[in-house]
Amino acid sequence: MKLSRYKRSSTFSYAFGATLIFELLKTYHSNITRVFLRPTQKRGEDLKKLLSELHHYNIDIVESTKAFNILGAKDSCLAIAEFNKPTTALVSTPETPHIVLVNPSDSGNLGTIIRTAVALGFSNLAIITPAVDHFDPKTIRASMGAIFHINIATFASFEEYLQSCNGSQPRTLYAFMLDQQSQLLTEIKPTDRNYALIFGNEATGLPESFANYAQPVFIPQSPIIDSLNLAVAASIGMYHFSTVSTAR
Amino acid sequence: MKLSRYKRSSTFSYAFGATLIFELLKTYHSNITRVFLRPTQKRGEDLKKLLSELHHYNIDIVESTKAFNILGAKDSCLAIAEFNKPTTALVSTPETPHIVLVNPSDSGNLGTIIRTAVALGFSNLAIITPAVDHFDPKTIRASMGAIFHINIATFASFEEYLQSCNGSQPRTLYAFMLDQQSQLLTEIKPTDRNYALIFGNEATGLPESFANYAQPVFIPQSPIIDSLNLAVAASIGMYHFSTVSTAR
Repeated sequence: MKLSRYKRSSTFSYAFGATLIFELLKTYHSNITRVFLRPTQKRGEDLKKLLSELHHYNIDIVESTKAFNILGAKDSCLAIAEFNKPTTALVSTPETPHIVLVNPSDSGNLGTIIRTAVALGFSNLAIITPAVDHFDPKTIRASMGAIFHINIATFASFEEYLQSCNGSQPRTLYAFMLDQQSQLLTEIKPTDRNYALIFGNEATGLPESFANYAQPVFIPQSPIIDSLNLAVAASIGMYHFSTVSTAR
Repeated sequence: MKLSRYKRSSTFSYAFGATLIFELLKTYHSNITRVFLRPTQKRGEDLKKLLSELHHYNIDIVESTKAFNILGAKDSCLAIAEFNKPTTALVSTPETPHIVLVNPSDSGNLGTIIRTAVALGFSNLAIITPAVDHFDPKTIRASMGAIFHINIATFASFEEYLQSCNGSQPRTLYAFMLDQQSQLLTEIKPTDRNYALIFGNEATGLPESFANYAQPVFIPQSPIIDSLNLAVAASIGMYHFSTVSTAR
């Protein structure tokens, strides 16, 4: 059994636990190469249902305690799916808003943003590198499996992202910044869904130069605090845009 | 030097790093009992400014590497403040909305919610126990020091919280639930700030019985995901209420 702890350079990643594997099965069952099962007597209803689905798709099941040790699973984890990382592309029609994360550095934040995006109807995410690995098992875990329901593409620069949209109708760009010159989020009433919401790095935010590309946006907040948590800011931004848009 | 790693039962807690200590100084400088400094040559502007403030308030400074080891600080942490945990009470005027967290279990989520609450103008937080310790240094860190700018009171039950409000004008209660019978958040337009927003535990949410006390509220979300992250749900709720209220 050739197996090693997850590395970013690997073509495989791992979904830990039945909940994530169920989500993986819904969209990418043909990407699953095998599922490791912890040898145990304590198999509840969830695991029995999982085994039945795995049999249905003819997915290899490997009983092995060693795999759980190698992959660094917790004792409570009873199943791990190994899968080929899917490749997705952004959809750039005028009806599909984009989320753009510039240099996100925390896998928990990235996973939480993906979970919120899928919840609020955003299904296209651009990530500008350098950035945390979106297929890191920690990101997958924080996304609660939502990562299997969203298109993600990475770009070496924001310009490269913009070029990828060439040919489609120009998109309104909103850059979430702490600049006091920005427009207040509460005052923005988009009239269509052909926009991109852009968020910067956890520690440094977006460079000022983004004001050249995009409408700067500020989430009204007390001067007592320096800033909002990135996942919180992105969630508030997505909630506002998904609910005030008159075009839904 | 009598010192041990933080325990919930202790009357003291610890703020790690200059950023948090600056926030502590703004509101509770008289609660600080001493500040530990890591013996080092590498003291930047931030630390010099901190030392000057500490001298201003006559706060004891203890140079000690041992303290950092005992308290479990990272190598990059150069200062730790020991402080008496302050006791705060909720303000229950009709102009002060309440946030109520029922059995929050994750210190990171709790700290993030406190950070967002202060950012969005909510300064009264009720916590129903059992719950994670809001003075745990991990919560303080996740709050980015916002915990020193909010009133927090704990209650053994939701009934006890309600009783504490007796004598003030009855408050409209909104319980964030996944119940499909709930009113959609987007449809709620509060006309005053005399309300409480109630959020449940990360894994279990609010018990159904809360529908007896409160108006159930649902954040519109795709059925693809089970639920939103607690800190995200609370942030979206607070954003909505702080911006749609006609009473500000």
